[in-house]
Parts: sequence; C-alpha cells; structure tokens
Amino acid sequence: MLSFISAGESHGEGIVAILEGMVAGLKVDASYINEDLKRRQGGYGRSVRMKMEKDTAHILAGMHHKVTTGSPIALMVKNNVRTIEKLPAITSPRPGHADLAGMLKYGIKDARTILERSSARETVARVAVGSICKKFLEDFGVFGFFHVVNIGGVEANTGDLSLKELEKKSSRSALWCADPEAEKCMREKIDTAAARGDTLGGVGELVMTNVVAGVGTFTSWRKRLDARIAEALMSIPSVKGVEIGIGFRGAHLAGSLFHDPVYYSKKEGFHRSSNNAGGIEGGMSNGEVITVRLMAKPIPTLTQGLDSVNVVTKETTQAHNERHDTVVLGACGVIAQAMLSFVLADAYLEKFGGDSLHETKMNFLHYCESIQRF
Amino acid sequence: MLSFISAGESHGEGIVAILEGMVAGLKVDASYINEDLKRRQGGYGRSVRMKMEKDTAHILAGMHHKVTTGSPIALMVKNNVRTIEKLPAITSPRPGHADLAGMLKYGIKDARTILERSSARETVARVAVGSICKKFLEDFGVFGFFHVVNIGGVEANTGDLSLKELEKKSSRSALWCADPEAEKCMREKIDTAAARGDTLGGVGELVMTNVVAGVGTFTSWRKRLDARIAEALMSIPSVKGVEIGIGFRGAHLAGSLFHDPVYYSKKEGFHRSSNNAGGIEGGMSNGEVITVRLMAKPIPTLTQGLDSVNVVTKETTQAHNERHDTVVLGACGVIAQAMLSFVLADAYLEKFGGDSLHETKMNFLHYCESIQRF
Amino acid sequence: MLSFISAGESHGEGIVAILEGMVAGLKVDASYINEDLKRRQGGYGRSVRMKMEKDTAHILAGMHHKVTTGSPIALMVKNNVRTIEKLPAITSPRPGHADLAGMLKYGIKDARTILERSSARETVARVAVGSICKKFLEDFGVFGFFHVVNIGGVEANTGDLSLKELEKKSSRSALWCADPEAEKCMREKIDTAAARGDTLGGVGELVMTNVVAGVGTFTSWRKRLDARIAEALMSIPSVKGVEIGIGFRGAHLAGSLFHDPVYYSKKEGFHRSSNNAGGIEGGMSNGEVITVRLMAKPIPTLTQGLDSVNVVTKETTQAHNERHDTVVLGACGVIAQAMLSFVLADAYLEKFGGDSLHETKMNFLHYCESIQRF
Amino acid sequence: MLSFISAGESHGEGIVAILEGMVAGLKVDASYINEDLKRRQGGYGRSVRMKMEKDTAHILAGMHHKVTTGSPIALMVKNNVRTIEKLPAITSPRPGHADLAGMLKYGIKDARTILERSSARETVARVAVGSICKKFLEDFGVFGFFHVVNIGGVEANTGDLSLKELEKKSSRSALWCADPEAEKCMREKIDTAAARGDTLGGVGELVMTNVVAGVGTFTSWRKRLDARIAEALMSIPSVKGVEIGIGFRGAHLAGSLFHDPVYYSKKEGFHRSSNNAGGIEGGMSNGEVITVRLMAKPIPTLTQGLDSVNVVTKETTQAHNERHDTVVLGACGVIAQAMLSFVLADAYLEKFGGDSLHETKMNFLHYCESIQRF
Repeated sequence: MLSFISAGESHGEGIVAILEGMVAGLKVDASYINEDLKRRQGGYGRSVRMKMEKDTAHILAGMHHKVTTGSPIALMVKNNVRTIEKLPAITSPRPGHADLAGMLKYGIKDARTILERSSARETVARVAVGSICKKFLEDFGVFGFFHVVNIGGVEANTGDLSLKELEKKSSRSALWCADPEAEKCMREKIDTAAARGDTLGGVGELVMTNVVAGVGTFTSWRKRLDARIAEALMSIPSVKGVEIGIGFRGAHLAGSLFHDPVYYSKKEGFHRSSNNAGGIEGGMSNGEVITVRLMAKPIPTLTQGLDSVNVVTKETTQAHNERHDTVVLGACGVIAQAMLSFVLADAYLEKFGGDSLHETKMNFLHYCESIQRF
Repeated sequence: MLSFISAGESHGEGIVAILEGMVAGLKVDASYINEDLKRRQGGYGRSVRMKMEKDTAHILAGMHHKVTTGSPIALMVKNNVRTIEKLPAITSPRPGHADLAGMLKYGIKDARTILERSSARETVARVAVGSICKKFLEDFGVFGFFHVVNIGGVEANTGDLSLKELEKKSSRSALWCADPEAEKCMREKIDTAAARGDTLGGVGELVMTNVVAGVGTFTSWRKRLDARIAEALMSIPSVKGVEIGIGFRGAHLAGSLFHDPVYYSKKEGFHRSSNNAGGIEGGMSNGEVITVRLMAKPIPTLTQGLDSVNVVTKETTQAHNERHDTVVLGACGVIAQAMLSFVLADAYLEKFGGDSLHETKMNFLHYCESIQRF
Repeated sequence: MLSFISAGESHGEGIVAILEGMVAGLKVDASYINEDLKRRQGGYGRSVRMKMEKDTAHILAGMHHKVTTGSPIALMVKNNVRTIEKLPAITSPRPGHADLAGMLKYGIKDARTILERSSARETVARVAVGSICKKFLEDFGVFGFFHVVNIGGVEANTGDLSLKELEKKSSRSALWCADPEAEKCMREKIDTAAARGDTLGGVGELVMTNVVAGVGTFTSWRKRLDARIAEALMSIPSVKGVEIGIGFRGAHLAGSLFHDPVYYSKKEGFHRSSNNAGGIEGGMSNGEVITVRLMAKPIPTLTQGLDSVNVVTKETTQAHNERHDTVVLGACGVIAQAMLSFVLADAYLEKFGGDSLHETKMNFLHYCESIQRF
Repeated sequence: MLSFISAGESHGEGIVAILEGMVAGLKVDASYINEDLKRRQGGYGRSVRMKMEKDTAHILAGMHHKVTTGSPIALMVKNNVRTIEKLPAITSPRPGHADLAGMLKYGIKDARTILERSSARETVARVAVGSICKKFLEDFGVFGFFHVVNIGGVEANTGDLSLKELEKKSSRSALWCADPEAEKCMREKIDTAAARGDTLGGVGELVMTNVVAGVGTFTSWRKRLDARIAEALMSIPSVKGVEIGIGFRGAHLAGSLFHDPVYYSKKEGFHRSSNNAGGIEGGMSNGEVITVRLMAKPIPTLTQGLDSVNVVTKETTQAHNERHDTVVLGACGVIAQAMLSFVLADAYLEKFGGDSLHETKMNFLHYCESIQRF
C-alpha cells in the first residue's frame, strides 16, 4: 500500500523523497518532521559538521494547510554543501564503503558518483518519510523509541528497567543509553577512539508499544511482518545484523523456556508471561511489545585511514577520507525507528484500508472491538 | 526480475509453487531438486514422520525435456497425509506459532486453517524453487553451503578451518557441524531435550563462494543485496535473527579492525586481508565470499506442552501439540540456502538481463572481462 | 493487494494458477468456477475440440470446506491432451502469433515451447481466478455481463435496449449478441468463413453494474482504475483495442455533448443523464455503470494457411496450422469479464482492506453509509 | 526495472518526479527535456496561459555533469502560479473530472485537493521523465513521433504517406496533422468550438521505428508489451481508448486479410507485407514499426459550463470552470510519446540488463548480431 523512494546525493542539491499511499487527513507540521531530522544529527561522538548544519524538510507536494491530501507527498531536505560538480575524483576506494564494488559495477575509475549516493546522507529521506508514518501510527496509539545497548563492546545493563524507565532514561542520554554507568564508559571509549582517529559501532534496540495483534501475515513469505522489518532495517547503511525479540541471544534456550506462554484475563485480554518473540509470531504482530535489535558497524571513514589501492596505478595507498563522525549509533536508531514506522504504517494500511484517516480509523476501531469481544 | 509464490497447506493436497522469470535453457533434472528436498528432511533430531515421508517435486509447467523454457515454472510437492478436511478444530493456540495472532486477525476460534498454512511444510516450495536457482548459479560458478555453529548453546569451534574443510566436514555431519567434538555435545543435548519432550534452536552460517562483484545496488533501499537477503532469510519460519559477515559478534571492534583492507595483485585482482563485511559492502557483492548467519528458535511444538488458553472457554490449558521434531536447524539451513540462491539468481538476472541461459552468460562473461581488465 | 500468476502449456500437464490476497470466508463452489470455464469453451463457431473437452478446476490449496482461508489459492485445470514432449518442432512461424518474435527472442529455431505457452489455453487460468473474484464482487452487489456488438463487420443494433434486456437477450444467444437479426447475419458470415478455412474477429462490450463510487484513484498513474482495466484487457491474447465508455466512437463529440451532467435526487443520490465516461472519471469509478469495449482480432490459425518462412531453410512456406476455431469473441468476453472482475476485486480490497469477507464488508458498508449521508 | 512516480499539484510548488532504474552514462541535457516540455505546451487551440508559461525541468539528483549516474533521477518543474493555499473551495463537481468521485471517496465537500492533483498539470512529470527515456532509446536507434488523425470528427487522410512524409508533414503542423486540408477543417472546427466556449477531442497515432524484435514477453500477462502500453496510455488523463495496429478499425477483416504474412530476404531479414498488428505479436515487439492509437476526450472544463450539483445545497448549478484550452490532443500526443518511451526503455532494460549505457549497449549489440545470424 505504502511505498517511498528517495533520490539525492551528499553534495548535490539535496535529498528528495516521495511517499505514496498515505491517507488524507493526517496533520503533520513540518516542525514535527524537523524534530526527527534534528535527532538524526545529534548524539555524542558526532562531527563538527553535524553540529553546524541543520536539516529541514521542505514539503513540495501532497499537503494542504499542513494536512495530507491522499496524494503522493514529496519533500526535500536541501544540502548546505552543494559542490558536487567541483569535487575531485576518488580513485582509492574506502574499505567498508560502496566504492570498490561500485567502481567495478559501473566500470569507472572514479568513485565520486558512487559515494555521493551511497553516503548516509540519503537517510534524511528515510527519517522525514518515517516521521510522517510515525505521526500516522501515533493516531492509532502506537509509540516507540530506540535505546543503545552496546557501543564498542561496552554493554548497557537495563534488564531491571520497565519500558517507561527505559524510554525516560535513554531519552535523556546523549548516547540514547539508559544505563548511566555504561554510558560513562561508552563516552570514554568514544573519546579514546576519536583521539586515535578511529570509529566505533554497536547494538541498539527499537521498541514499539501498542501494536494491535494480527498485522502482517504468514500467508506469503514477502508479506510477513518480520521479513519486512528485517528488509527495512538491513537496508540502512552500516547495519549488519537484525534480530527480533531475543534473537541470537536466545540460541541456547530450550523451547520450553523460549516460547511465551499465553494467559487470559478480562482486564488484559490475551497476554504473555515473557516476550522472547519480540511481539511477532507467525509473521504477524501478536499484541505484545515489538522489540528489534540491530548491529551497526563502525563507520568506515577513519581519520587514520585504512589500506587500500589506487585503482589507476594499482599501488597500495591509504583510503580516501571524507567524513569524521566517531560513532553514529544514535542516528542509526533514529533512522531505524523511521523505517520501522514505515513498515508498520504500511501493514496497518494493508489491514485496515481506507482513503482518509477517518475511514482507516473507523475500520481499525471496529477491528479492535472484535478483538475485545473475542 | 525473478519472483516466486507458493500455496498449500500442511495436510492438504500438497505445496504448489510458481517461479517466474527464470531464463530458458537451464537444465534441471527433477532428481537434482529431489536431492535438496531430501536434505531438507534429514538431520539428527528429526521426527519419525520425516524419515518415513519422501518429498518429490512434480514439474507441472515451464520445462521441456528437462530444460527450462523461459515460461513460469510450476511445481508441486504432494502431501502424504491429506486429511485436512477431517482434522479437528484447534482452540488452544500454541505459543511461538501463528495460532493466536491468526485467530484474532481472522476473527475465528479455530486455528486449523491458520496452522495448516503457517506450518513449515510450506518451505518445501522454497527448497524446490531455490534448487532451480541454485542450479542456475552453478552455471555461473557460484557454489554455497550451510554449516551449524551453535545448537542449544553448544558452540562449534571452526575458526581454523579453510572454506573447503568447513564444507567437507559439515557435509559429513548429521548435524551439518564441522566440529566433531561440538557435534557430539550437540547430540547429547538433543537426546536429553528429546527425552524431556523439549526442543532446541541454534545458529547456522551460509557461505556463497565466487559471487561476482557489483551485484545488487546502493542506489535504492529496496534494491540493496543485504536488505533482500535479510528479507528472504527472516521470512523463514523460526528464524529470529540474521547477520551478514561478522554482524553482532563484531560490535566491539573499532573501525580500524572491523573494515577489510583492499589489496591488489595481478593474479588475484582486488582482494582483502579479512572478510568481516561478509562479502557485501554498500548493498552490493564485493567479490569476497558471502557469509550470512541466522538464528533459528526452537520449534514451538513441544510434547510437554506450554501454557495456553482455550479461546472458547478462556480457561488455561496446554497448547495443542502437532509435530515432534527436536531440532530443525539443518532443515532451516537447506531452506536458507534455497532462499539465498533465489536472491542471488534474481540479482544476477537484474544485472545481466537475457532471456536464455546462453544470452545471460554471454552478458556475464563480458562483464567479467571488464573486471579483469579494470 | 490481489495478484495472480499462472503457469502451464497447451499440451502439458495443465494450467496452474495462484491467486494471492483474497480474503478468508468467501464461499466458492468448484461448480461455480466450472460454469465459467464451460462458458469459455462455448459459443457458435468453435472447433470440435472445444465441444469434446470439458475443463474443470481442481482446487489445490487455499480453501477449506469450500470456503477461502485467506491463504493463496492454487488451482489447476488439467489438459486432456498431454503430448507436449512428443510434439514436432515448428519451424514456420504463424503470422499473428508469438512464434517469430519468440524464436528471435530466445534464439531457437523451433517455436514449440513458445506456442505452447503463448497459446490461448493459458486463459483458463484467468477465467478460473476471475471466477473467484466475480463471486467476491457479487457479495458486494456487483454483477456484470458481456455482449457482442460486432463480428466480422456485422454490427449489432442494441441502442434501444435497457441493461436488463441487453443482458437477457445476449445471454440467450449462442454468439452473446442481443440483436437477433444481427446474430443471424453473423452466423452466416461465420459459416462462410469456416467453409473458406478463414477466421473472424470483432468487438464486444463488458458491463459492470453497481460498482460503488470512489474505487481506484487519480493520485498515481499506475493506480488509476482505467489504466488497470486497459492493462488487464489488452493482456488477453487477440485483444488489440480497449475503450472505456464511448471511447473512439465519441471522437467527434464536443465537450458539451460528451460529458455526463450531474444531477441529484434523494432517491437516486448523484446521477447522470448520460454515461459516455463509462462509469470512470479521474481514474475512479463514479457510481455509474462501468462499460468497456474490446476489439479481438480474428484468431491467427487458419486452415487455409498464411504466407510464412521456414526459419531453417529461409524458404517461403505456409504457416503451421494448430487449431480450428472460426471465431472466439464469446470466449474472449468470458476471459475479459474474468479480468475485469479481478481488477475490480483488487480495487475493492485496496479501498476497504480486511482479512475476512466479514471485515471487508463491514468496512464497505460504513463507506456506503457515508456516501448516502453525503 | 525502470519505474517512476510523480507528486505535485496544479497550483502548488511544482511537479516532482523520480525515475528509478535508468543506467549510468546517458547524456541528457536539460535543454533536451525542456524542448519536450515546450512541445507539450504548444499546438493550436491552447489557452493563453499555456503561451505565457514556460515549463523547465530542474534536475535535483541522479546526474553528474549532465550525465546519468545510475542513481534515481529527481527532477522538478516549478509552477508559475503557486496560490494553492489561498484558492477557494470547489463545491460543484465538474462532469468529466475526478471531482465528484473524489469527494465521495475522501468524504469531503471541497474538491480543491482533488482537482489540484488530478489536473493534467501532473503530466509535465511524465513528459520530463519520458524525455530521458526517449533519449535512452535514441541511443539504441529507436525514434518515434505522434500525429493527429481526427479532431472533433474531422478525419485526416494519410493513407498514402510514407512514414518519413508522415513525420515531416505532421511535425510542421500546429495540430500535428499530416493532412493539410484536414488540418484546415480542424482549425475551423476549433475556432467555432472556442467561440461557443466548447471543447474538442479526437484521435492520434504514435509511431515507433526500429524497435528490435523480442522485447516484452508472452510468458506472463503483466509482462506483455501490449498490456504495458495500454496501461501507460490509458493512464493519461483524457484518454478513453487505446488500440494497437489497426485495432477497432480491423474488426471487419477476416483472418486471411488481418494477419501480416512473413517473408525473408538477406537484405531485410524477416519482414511483413502489411502491419495490421502494429509491430506487436504475442505481447512482444516483432521487429516491425510499432503503431498505437489513442482517443482523447474533449477536455471537461468548458467556459459554457455543464449541469452539475452543489454538493452542499444539493441544488443544480453550473460546474466550476478552471481552465480554457479548446483542444489538447497534441499535448496528449507528447505525453503519450513520453509514456510509450518509458514502457519501451523499461522493456529494453529488462531484456538487456546492464548498469551503464555501455554495458547495456554491448549486450544489445550481441543480441542484434544473433538476430542477423539467425
């Protein structure tokens, strides 16, 4: 139902996106989107560039008096630096980037056009589009957040926290980390890495609450909610791993401990005593909180350089060095939340149909009643 | 370019699949497909049913004298047990299955039609279709295998093995495990679990060698090879985690250690001194070996049952119990290899076009020459 | 939402189709589908083969006790003649068929595999799948029919007939023609053509009543209802023209006469004094009767042969001769009705969402109420 | 392979489009695109607004030094009038427009947001995107043009003209009509209609030369070239009919006269003595000239108004009147040529693959050689 596409280069005019399939009648102020764009640029360990630039979304189409019309929504985030036509050729591919594979793919000895598009700059489109989807989900009572559980090997200890505490504490942290002591160690690790000209990666967790049971489906492999989430998150530059619920960490558990027993009470309806499934069973939401973790590699542009080859001379050299963030896991989380919001909004529209927010919501409410009566 | 869809229930007529977009001129003997179907049914820790039944693929369309014609390929794997119309209603949803979410989704108090389709029986379609894709890839020099690295918490130690040894040793193991000592512990763990009526999950790794650089693309999020792999693998029932290359295990590494330096020699062309990226950078194959790991949860049907609720009476009960495998990680690997073969064959057809194997191969060879000359 | 794919060859095992996205809870007896399959084989001017063979649909998956389950529906129509592996090579391409272009496309000098798939035999899949969609639409009050307006240049005069009369009279005619005098002339023309070993084409009209206003959309070109109808109908072998409403016949009309004025009364709601638009404005249904015409070329297999070339020897020859119908416009109409039903069912599911017939219908009824209150 | 989407309203910021899947290495100067945009605005019978405004395409992404990069191409055509937020509500739907169906669909009593998007203004996106595709096709030797065969009932007589004469004469005509005498009558008819405040429609023909045989396919209904052409052309606002080759005009022909006999000579290869099929057989190009006709209704905005209803008061009224062209068939032709170029470029990329123009062309040339050797 819902789809989006983006275009744009890191040092071109800007990043353009078109979101197709959003219902009419959704109020989305540009300031709402810009708040998410700002979150994407924040966090400890970011470069000076991030602090100086301020991304804002220009709505080009699909809104009328700050309300969606049902028509495709086009928006643009302009670049501050638009020097693409004057930038030098890049002949030494950076390990960890698209550079080398891209040059071979296109048969060109300059990675400029490749790195301009494969740059993480493209993710502003995802955040802006996902922000609209997030606003849509809020109208259905769905809220989510992201928190960091590991940076550079420093593990946060959050096992005892309730969801509310987890959200509160992580939202106050410059590293999105709900464990203050771990955060302190992470900062030190980041400072040390920065001093070395090195970078760090890590692991973060997305949480989505109040997703109604029965969204997504088991009937066809491409329609499964878990497959769509994995696709959306793994498509984020830097992400190299995705797990739903306990994931890899539950590999040692026997079935009797892994699976989440079902109980029922009038007040709570069907509920579970654990949530190792992360809110998804059989490719559908099951009514529990959705939890997804992702692993983001350290960004591959290092001040200290990495061994590479000049593709013209074939001599060993140091990789070209374009940017200077030390850790971007928080930004990754903002992007991941946007992508997850897109996937869920799509799944809601698939199940509930409708051309306007009012119509979709009416259909949704009737379904909720049928679940309550079940 | 390439797409497939399946239909079919666990106790219905059988599983039907249609693969669309495969080139003409590919020789695929049914025995080739049946060999993969047999591998899917094998492995230590499988139920008696698996040993008695023998799946075979009936090609219904799209082949002529055992060669693909370019038309959609339809195939069917018939069920041995076709009692679906007589089977009882299921009113106690099994934790870990689609049962509860499915009943709420459809508003029905019998999970029969849900579990019949959400059953892993559906994966025979994937294996059969993926087998054709695997055969296609072999014609382009691409070969792959799967090996088990963890069952129920027992970790295999394979760090010192070459790819050849890894393949050889794992192919000889009834658990697809290349570490004989770990395999022994795994067997014991399985026997203990089986005696308890419990089940086990674990982690396995897919390896694909000789994938040419430049397949997949960074230009749009849905076309990235990593996103497509994650989607395909996470869509497999039981899979709860996917990682490419070192993935989560590399969360602690600094960028200077994570990324794979580039070198060049006339003999080897561009190559790396490590492969933490798992053969994929910027959403494209980079010419290195592709490695992907998946986590499969313990299958959720336990002889000992799990707490559940009778949806009619709302009383607590034991979950319905339909099947009896103890561990299915090997089968998961066969399915995962099929899905990965599908994704790669699709990406090859996308890049090289062509209506016949001959035409696609000519286009491929010209590209390979351009890489060698690069 | 809804999609279908088919596989199968004219003299292979049969034709297989998978319909994905149909809601659960729809009752469809095989006899309902078979009735449509029979209509496809009927009509004056058909070959002896058509009268001898009787197509029946075997439901392989997706139904439980004759009710859809929400899972993909697989069905197969078996062939009576399954001699494909023994049939001779075809080296003289038949004008009007896929033969020549197909041989060049695949680089093969035998059109066998091409004509086996490009054969109109494939349309049994469309009729069977469309029959399920037609049944779905009936549950929403939508009914349709097809009638012939021109065969071989003989034009039917039906201008004075009401829709009811049109349906009644055409349904009684062996040529689907509501004008008995024209039908008589058509029969004579057919007999003469048959005697000469020649074939005839013509023009027919699809009528769909009671389609609710607002289905389809103007917001994106690929989602427009008119575009989807044109795609679906032009994809039918033999169809070379599609027009909606008055179409080409209205090229001479000025805007003041072409467009359908809007009126309102409590009883009828919004209505028009004419229907030149054929029930579609702005890529959406507008609440009026949907009318679509198609032109079907004479089938290109003639007993008397057509000039062609032996692709091996390059000598001029007579085209290979495979089948013997004289006119198939009625069959074309059955197929077209099936395709139109598929397009409309898809558009309904897109607008109204839902996983079960009950849920979709509730959403639909609320929308209908909102239109009545408008 | 190739896809595009647009966004934008008639009186908003402008029209935005993203074209995805175009190869790298294609030179496209903005002036090339602007020339097509200018053609869209031209022709006899256009409003004063058309003559005053001058559309130009701003490339926002996907090009580097005027050459495509392989990344999505974003472009924008800005509006001269950007008053959308201040324009009045429209409560009287215009017959022939999306207004009424749109209001019912969204449940709103103001058609403003509907007509802003359903406006033909959106087609500038198609022309700009199609212009890039047209440039791509030119690199493969494919050239096309459009000529008018009927306006308001005045039929052009072009039966004796060669393709070259047809192109030459129609390109010199302000009505794209190759018959000067018919053109004179058309002008008179247009002047009379304009004086009355009325509008006219008509019929035009697209011609595409040098399309290689074997593009498109018969194997699946949605991949057929004829279906894709019909979808693309019927999606153009105003188009109500599409025919390929002789289409409806050949309904009276017997098969022996309809189908195009095949001949062969060393010099010409396979060729035909007629082209009633319009260059497409079996859903594929057959190597002959592709000809497609479309019927465009008179534009539904008339100075003289049409009967309508005020949706608030339910009283009969005159429809709102937004624009003043008398005939837009020429513009329709420019749009149709753009859409046909998109469809063919897509089909070429599907068959020949490749990431760069060089790679695609090499694959294409090898195929052409195989046809010549056939």
